[in-house]
Amino acid sequence: MLSEFLLAEMARLGDQDALPLHRQLYESLRRALLEGKLPAGERLPSSRDLAQDLNLSRNTVVAAINQLSVEGYLVSRIGSGTFVNDNVPRVHSGRATEARWRGANPGLAGELSTRGKALSTTFCATELEVQPFTPGIADFSAFPIGLWQRLQNKHWRMTYPDMLDYNNSGGYAPLRRAITDYLRVSRSVQLDADQVIVTTGTQQSLELCARMLADHGDTVWVEDPAYWGAVKAFMATGLAIEPVAVDDEGINPDAARPDKPPRLIYVTPSHQYPTGAVMSLPRRQQLLLTARQHRAWILEDDYDSEYRFSGPPISSLEGLDTDGRVLYMGTFSKVLYPGIKLGYLVVPKPLATAFKQAHYDLNRPGQMPMQAALAEFIEMGHFSSALRRARQNYAERRQCLLEALRPLLSAPDLPPRISGAEQGLHLCLRLPTNADDKAIAQTLARQGLTVRPLSSYCMARSDLQGLVIGYGYAPLSAIQRCGPMIAQTVAQSINACIAPKRPEKPAR
Amino acid sequence: MLSEFLLAEMARLGDQDALPLHRQLYESLRRALLEGKLPAGERLPSSRDLAQDLNLSRNTVVAAINQLSVEGYLVSRIGSGTFVNDNVPRVHSGRATEARWRGANPGLAGELSTRGKALSTTFCATELEVQPFTPGIADFSAFPIGLWQRLQNKHWRMTYPDMLDYNNSGGYAPLRRAITDYLRVSRSVQLDADQVIVTTGTQQSLELCARMLADHGDTVWVEDPAYWGAVKAFMATGLAIEPVAVDDEGINPDAARPDKPPRLIYVTPSHQYPTGAVMSLPRRQQLLLTARQHRAWILEDDYDSEYRFSGPPISSLEGLDTDGRVLYMGTFSKVLYPGIKLGYLVVPKPLATAFKQAHYDLNRPGQMPMQAALAEFIEMGHFSSALRRARQNYAERRQCLLEALRPLLSAPDLPPRISGAEQGLHLCLRLPTNADDKAIAQTLARQGLTVRPLSSYCMARSDLQGLVIGYGYAPLSAIQRCGPMIAQTVAQSINACIAPKRPEKPAR
Repeated sequence: MLSEFLLAEMARLGDQDALPLHRQLYESLRRALLEGKLPAGERLPSSRDLAQDLNLSRNTVVAAINQLSVEGYLVSRIGSGTFVNDNVPRVHSGRATEARWRGANPGLAGELSTRGKALSTTFCATELEVQPFTPGIADFSAFPIGLWQRLQNKHWRMTYPDMLDYNNSGGYAPLRRAITDYLRVSRSVQLDADQVIVTTGTQQSLELCARMLADHGDTVWVEDPAYWGAVKAFMATGLAIEPVAVDDEGINPDAARPDKPPRLIYVTPSHQYPTGAVMSLPRRQQLLLTARQHRAWILEDDYDSEYRFSGPPISSLEGLDTDGRVLYMGTFSKVLYPGIKLGYLVVPKPLATAFKQAHYDLNRPGQMPMQAALAEFIEMGHFSSALRRARQNYAERRQCLLEALRPLLSAPDLPPRISGAEQGLHLCLRLPTNADDKAIAQTLARQGLTVRPLSSYCMARSDLQGLVIGYGYAPLSAIQRCGPMIAQTVAQSINACIAPKRPEKPAR
Repeated sequence: MLSEFLLAEMARLGDQDALPLHRQLYESLRRALLEGKLPAGERLPSSRDLAQDLNLSRNTVVAAINQLSVEGYLVSRIGSGTFVNDNVPRVHSGRATEARWRGANPGLAGELSTRGKALSTTFCATELEVQPFTPGIADFSAFPIGLWQRLQNKHWRMTYPDMLDYNNSGGYAPLRRAITDYLRVSRSVQLDADQVIVTTGTQQSLELCARMLADHGDTVWVEDPAYWGAVKAFMATGLAIEPVAVDDEGINPDAARPDKPPRLIYVTPSHQYPTGAVMSLPRRQQLLLTARQHRAWILEDDYDSEYRFSGPPISSLEGLDTDGRVLYMGTFSKVLYPGIKLGYLVVPKPLATAFKQAHYDLNRPGQMPMQAALAEFIEMGHFSSALRRARQNYAERRQCLLEALRPLLSAPDLPPRISGAEQGLHLCLRLPTNADDKAIAQTLARQGLTVRPLSSYCMARSDLQGLVIGYGYAPLSAIQRCGPMIAQTVAQSINACIAPKRPEKPAR
């Protein structure tokens, strides 16, 4: 009976708009729960059974169930299945207020500000983004929850009331010291613990830099193609975004328009997101010189620096800088888990006091017991061992994915190539410029394989086609099973995409 | 020996700039720790002994020690004293990088953006703000840490990997439902759990509203005098701040300049910060009408609504609104603890999807296990009982403070009056307009009594003098001891301030 309800709902949703399948299933299941089709405490059919009944891939079913679990509609108990939570929000309460909104003010949603509209409609992360091959996600299923809980408990037991308050000194001092030691040794950043500000992650670090160092309308150079999160942060802080093309060595200052000198330059030098380019040493030096000439600040987002698989280690930009123009940022979300919401920003010493004051007033930082647990996690060596284990793990996944994709690289005519596999948690399968990466990604999505089209990260340029494929979140077994499927689909799609187009656009 | 070092350092700092005493002591102690004057593990002299040696009030010493504890330099063990943490950051590492900054780029700090300078220098919360009579702080020392830890543990044990990820649905569903139930019953807000967005607190709620509903340069009406945190949030989001005077009924739309129609109107109707005015029902209706006329949005910051001591209950603006123009926000920092960083924003239904999308992209919300623990804390009735206990507690403190201040109110000539004592965690002692509230606050600060001058919250107006006195954080015993001291000092200061001024400025 549940399956019939779901099929009917999904058919209705499928007609209405172009929701992806997992989203249709999520909405249908959610409605089933809200309407009491499955009472509280009841066991859900297994994902395997549901997939069979509904004729969907199991990935799709699992994605929808996971999302409902995260939102608290369902509860998973290992070994015994998934159950309806006792706390499912009651639908009748919703109905009461719906009446209020039905008649009144139909135009309200149109009254968002211009930036509000832009912030909620452009460069949006897909709703259900945690899928095996989604780029930018680490495998936090391996996070040692038990150990983490013990450390947290220890610090909660030791907690005196002041640890429950906001913190105005840039973060818990032992955590800042642990970050300092790590960055000195691993990233050759030259710093002192006073320069470290603990933030809730890269978004907060970026906004703080944008506000403190640039005014509304000032120009920020952003890599093209770009990390959406950074673009959003700069949109939100009112900066004029100037896309600067990335090549195999990273952002290319010579490609920038000379009439748009930067106030800020945002880069991801360790593993350019999304192309995966590692910024070369000469390019790093050129960029530092460019910044000095323009009296600009460099925002160095050193994400994925932890995972290097081949190629020589290159110092951070901060480590090469002699002029104090680099602000360096990192996050714990890729090594620990995303929801921890702890990252760090290293600011030049002369700016530290002003940054800390504004950070305190704007963001009221807290979570001191968690900061204390993290400090101990790092000091006791758990961070290093988590990193070692993760590197090992990701190296295997990367290797497996590379092997699965290898047959593609020997296509007779304009073969795809792979970029960005030396470092990080994703690689980029570059396609001929007349391929249609969005169509290929959609074809893959219909098979439950979520990769991102490279062109969707582009701002000003239209010369890039490719697939950004993450191996951080996909278990080895999934890569072994699905990697060849990706390769096969891409091979077919390229032929299909290219063949009919070529006669019309020979010069492209 | 320690005391001598501290005295010498404090003398040096006292000469250099006008740091408050507790800050001088904090800096001196910190230096003593960094330079190894007190080795790791060593016990600090008691605050009583230090206060005696240094000839300081014990409050001052305790403030400095607490701050160093929060930052991890010191560790307190109940019953056995305060010790130097093994983890004190090493000073030699700092010295190595200091050389880098000494020569290079002395003008760097001057390169902050205009808004960066404003954000780090105006309307800044005092660094060491947790003092017995500081307004705006609740007594989180009563927070049931043990219970909270048990709930967190339970949810960490049940945590499946997806709970460690970011959340894109506006927060953990059972928490949104618990907030919905609470607001419906206690604040007559008309809502549905879909309209609730869990944020990290009021600052994040305000920024999200400012960005989604107003563009750079749009006008926001802000109460005058105002809550600094909100002013900062609007400065940071580029709005044009238009102060609108507050009277005994709250913000007065008739006092606004007609040439500055608002896009947003920010109000604290339950307990205007800092005057304490409770917005009257007619004023609420007038404000809703004004918003409708201007097609403006009202941002209702309902802080302190939990604590009502006298006077009739008044529905929230959201509850009175028939037009869907009110965004309602609250926080858990006043009932649980500040560092929890969890609050909520209720948005009109037609805006919910856009707000959630932008919130996800800009802020990447997380901390799901903590949200789950909070949901259970509320559902199991712990929130209500914490609230009941706190109300009882604060009612006693309020009564005690009122009694201590009563002698002031019968001064023969232009006596002070008290406003805002019906509700919330602070009251406002209004002084004659020719008093100098800043000077009086400084006199009190020298006695270790931290209250805030009312005039420091004013933006456009200069007609307000008074002292904003918190009773949320001061234990009853401190109020019993210090309340009469405040009254006495104020009485003396008023006489001193007024007497010499009156002949010169009779009309003021």
